[in-house]
Amino acid sequence: KKAGDDVDLGHRGELDLSEKYNYDLSRAQLKASSRTSALLAGFAMVCLVELQYDQSTPKPLLIVLGVVTSLLVSVHLLALMMSTCILPYMEATGCTQDSPHIKLKFYIDLSWLFSTCIGLLLFLVEIGVIFYVKFTAVGYPTAGYITTAMLVPVGVVFVVFSYLIHKNRVSHSLGRFKHKVDTMKQFLDV
Amino acid sequence: KKAGDDVDLGHRGELDLSEKYNYDLSRAQLKASSRTSALLAGFAMVCLVELQYDQSTPKPLLIVLGVVTSLLVSVHLLALMMSTCILPYMEATGCTQDSPHIKLKFYIDLSWLFSTCIGLLLFLVEIGVIFYVKFTAVGYPTAGYITTAMLVPVGVVFVVFSYLIHKNRVSHSLGRFKHKVDTMKQFLDV
Amino acid sequence: KKAGDDVDLGHRGELDLSEKYNYDLSRAQLKASSRTSALLAGFAMVCLVELQYDQSTPKPLLIVLGVVTSLLVSVHLLALMMSTCILPYMEATGCTQDSPHIKLKFYIDLSWLFSTCIGLLLFLVEIGVIFYVKFTAVGYPTAGYITTAMLVPVGVVFVVFSYLIHKNRVSHSLGRFKHKVDTMKQFLDV
Amino acid sequence: KKAGDDVDLGHRGELDLSEKYNYDLSRAQLKASSRTSALLAGFAMVCLVELQYDQSTPKPLLIVLGVVTSLLVSVHLLALMMSTCILPYMEATGCTQDSPHIKLKFYIDLSWLFSTCIGLLLFLVEIGVIFYVKFTAVGYPTAGYITTAMLVPVGVVFVVFSYLIHKNRVSHSLGRFKHKVDTMKQFLDV
Amino acid sequence: KKAGDDVDLGHRGELDLSEKYNYDLSRAQLKASSRTSALLAGFAMVCLVELQYDQSTPKPLLIVLGVVTSLLVSVHLLALMMSTCILPYMEATGCTQDSPHIKLKFYIDLSWLFSTCIGLLLFLVEIGVIFYVKFTAVGYPTAGYITTAMLVPVGVVFVVFSYLIHKNRVSHSLGRFKHKVDTMKQFLDV
Amino acid sequence: KKAGDDVDLGHRGELDLSEKYNYDLSRAQLKASSRTSALLAGFAMVCLVELQYDQSTPKPLLIVLGVVTSLLVSVHLLALMMSTCILPYMEATGCTQDSPHIKLKFYIDLSWLFSTCIGLLLFLVEIGVIFYVKFTAVGYPTAGYITTAMLVPVGVVFVVFSYLIHKNRVSHSLGRFKHKVDTMKQFLDV
Repeated sequence: KKAGDDVDLGHRGELDLSEKYNYDLSRAQLKASSRTSALLAGFAMVCLVELQYDQSTPKPLLIVLGVVTSLLVSVHLLALMMSTCILPYMEATGCTQDSPHIKLKFYIDLSWLFSTCIGLLLFLVEIGVIFYVKFTAVGYPTAGYITTAMLVPVGVVFVVFSYLIHKNRVSHSLGRFKHKVDTMKQFLDV
Repeated sequence: KKAGDDVDLGHRGELDLSEKYNYDLSRAQLKASSRTSALLAGFAMVCLVELQYDQSTPKPLLIVLGVVTSLLVSVHLLALMMSTCILPYMEATGCTQDSPHIKLKFYIDLSWLFSTCIGLLLFLVEIGVIFYVKFTAVGYPTAGYITTAMLVPVGVVFVVFSYLIHKNRVSHSLGRFKHKVDTMKQFLDV
Repeated sequence: KKAGDDVDLGHRGELDLSEKYNYDLSRAQLKASSRTSALLAGFAMVCLVELQYDQSTPKPLLIVLGVVTSLLVSVHLLALMMSTCILPYMEATGCTQDSPHIKLKFYIDLSWLFSTCIGLLLFLVEIGVIFYVKFTAVGYPTAGYITTAMLVPVGVVFVVFSYLIHKNRVSHSLGRFKHKVDTMKQFLDV
Repeated sequence: KKAGDDVDLGHRGELDLSEKYNYDLSRAQLKASSRTSALLAGFAMVCLVELQYDQSTPKPLLIVLGVVTSLLVSVHLLALMMSTCILPYMEATGCTQDSPHIKLKFYIDLSWLFSTCIGLLLFLVEIGVIFYVKFTAVGYPTAGYITTAMLVPVGVVFVVFSYLIHKNRVSHSLGRFKHKVDTMKQFLDV
Repeated sequence: KKAGDDVDLGHRGELDLSEKYNYDLSRAQLKASSRTSALLAGFAMVCLVELQYDQSTPKPLLIVLGVVTSLLVSVHLLALMMSTCILPYMEATGCTQDSPHIKLKFYIDLSWLFSTCIGLLLFLVEIGVIFYVKFTAVGYPTAGYITTAMLVPVGVVFVVFSYLIHKNRVSHSLGRFKHKVDTMKQFLDV
Repeated sequence: KKAGDDVDLGHRGELDLSEKYNYDLSRAQLKASSRTSALLAGFAMVCLVELQYDQSTPKPLLIVLGVVTSLLVSVHLLALMMSTCILPYMEATGCTQDSPHIKLKFYIDLSWLFSTCIGLLLFLVEIGVIFYVKFTAVGYPTAGYITTAMLVPVGVVFVVFSYLIHKNRVSHSLGRFKHKVDTMKQFLDV
């Protein structure tokens, strides 16, 4: 019977380790997303107030500017809200079953996605739009086309890198879990 | 008699744990709300000073701008005042019965609500108003309507997420308490 | 004789605890007031330099603006000076009888009052004045009246909350002291 | 057989030390690159929004400005994305075989290269371009030529120093590895 | 002979304690002065670049503005240089006889005086001058007189508080030293 | 033979202490120089973008401004690059023979010299040039002469203080080394 207990304890210890990993990961993600979002929301707001445009700016450009800027600010404010709402609860519970990182996993991942992926991509779009507005204002939209043409491959590289890093991490986690289960099995057989 | 003492101690230990949780939570909330409020009050102030409007801006828009901006600044200054007033006392007492987080719970929750919910929602409203002022200044209020139309669903998502995160946490706390009481009962029966 | 020594030591330990509380409180207050003052002095200075007013601004408004802004900056600079002057001495002595938080209590409380109460209230007044200047510049002072009317109840709420938090804390400290003395008496009687 | 085990353990300990070095290095690099990129992306964005140019600015200059600024911002945003994406995973796993710094070495090095080498070099180019735009605006492009002439040797010094520091570090690592292997061999022979 | 050794050790311990106090004090002062100076130098620089004045500004005012601003920036840059030059040496030696806080006491005190007293006083003067420039620009120097009249008592309060805090601290140190010597004497007599 | 070993160990311990001092010093210097350079580069960049000059500015002044500003930014960017490149390697190796602070001593000292001496001196020159540009723009270059006349003695004081602090530290290090060697000799003789 004692051996069974040991197995059980080993199993629970294994779970605890994996839980600790998830807890630490969620906390580090929330911290990083709150820092990144605060920084980028700050800049998006400066854009919002200080960018000058006049009556000659083409109307569709104004609409695109309005839509992209408000999406950008919204995405970062949502990420900021979610991370500042969940972090104090996680820090108060510590790495236990009560920690909100288990039930609120969806919001943590969303906050992360908003601030590091969608938020940064929208930023690249915003930069393209700003250059468009500025170059149109001095009567030379061609420079705007060139800048946009340059930002498209950057955006593609951005998405590809994001995807590769993410895929790598997920396969990692899976491999990690498999490896641990195997190790545990070996341990029990001997 | 010794068993009774143990139960008593266990009970007190249980309470202490729950108190420690409340203390840590209050402190983390105050810290987060003071950081968020300082950031957002800072931006609201830059808006206040640097946003340009001229004589052609429609009068009702000016009133809305004045009301929203001063509400936004007030809410964040109140949250900042409450958190900087209470935090030093909490840090000086440590997690004891004397800590002000018990009697001043109302102000801590209010400070939290102001900086993470009402304050951020007002921010979304402010962004809509600023776009309105800027797009009206260049004679194209339609872009303002579109931006506002986009910010309405964002605001709804914001409120819904806030509510779901909050509900989840409260039911959590209740479940947590119940679970602990049950564990304690089981402990006493055996 | 040994019992007397113990009582004496207990008594001294009690005093040390209360001293430690005062030391930690003073230090946390000085740190918080130096951070808040630096932030708000920074904004007041930006207001000072970047706010635009022209010849048509009513003269009394200019006087009010000058008086409020310089009071605001002065109050925060004084708080900053007092906190940065006293903190290094407190940190060097540690929690001992030599620590300046005992003799310089008045300056610590003043620094605290300046940065969290008077300083923040002046800030609300400053916001009202800035809106007045800006709305007068575009020929619509009515919006300024409305903003001011809104800031008055906020100021009242601010003062009331400040007072309630402060009162609560003082009665706390008194209750705390009484409770400790009682505990000590009980301890000695048994 | 025990000696073989010891050798094996020594070998593994050696590897662990080298792994710990790689882990600490990757983490410190990611942290530094995220800090530097945030700072410089922030300034590039201020340039983007606040730099004034008018219709008389030569067209090729506008194109160069657009291309350099968007490259600069892109490079720093990519570095920021890569470092904020990988860091939480590294901090959650700790220095283990599961840490992503082994599989994602390429992205860590790229992030580092982007923020400390290419990003800073582009910055020097950007400064040259800004001076060009500003001096052309006041009708005196000669000052722009002189500034550019001065920035060329600075850029060369920059590249040379980067290269020397980098080479030194790599030869270091190699020397270090060799030295350790030799020490280990000596240890096994005696 | 052993008693003599003990006395000697006690004496040395006493000195060590006083040295530790001086070391901690110097370090805390340098840190505080570097932080304050960076903040205020930053603002003084913004004033320098962004303050607008035109041809109608009275000539003596321009001279006063130039002199006060450059003094202000110089004082803070000197304090910053002295503190960033000495701090790394203090942190590397730790609290030993080699620590530069003994030989470089003069520079530490000067850095402290520059950033917390002279630097902040010059700041009050600068604010008065800025208001003068701004109110003269809108043709109403009377508001400038009133602001200056208000800043004079603030400056007096500032100097008096500085002096009282400083005196208090010095008498403290002396009292502290005397008390320690007395304690030591008593210890030796018994 | 054992005594010889002890001497050897003592000798090595001595070296280790001196190495630890050099390691800690290099690290503190790199940290301080990266912080100072980031701050000052930030301001130099704001100057670069926001300073307004028009067609009437004398041509030689524009050249001086361009040269000083780009030198200032270059010096701080080089210091920033060197410190962010070397620090992660130092932190990963810890205080060992592999730490790059031994081979890269030259770059660490250069980074230090750039950010705390040359960088700050160039800053004083930049302030003088900015005042010149601004006062020339309002047609009163005399105020510029006076400001420059004031900054010359400040620069001299700056250089003298830098030199005295540096000399003091070097003689310190030498004295320190000598003293240690003497102590060690005495130890071996007895």
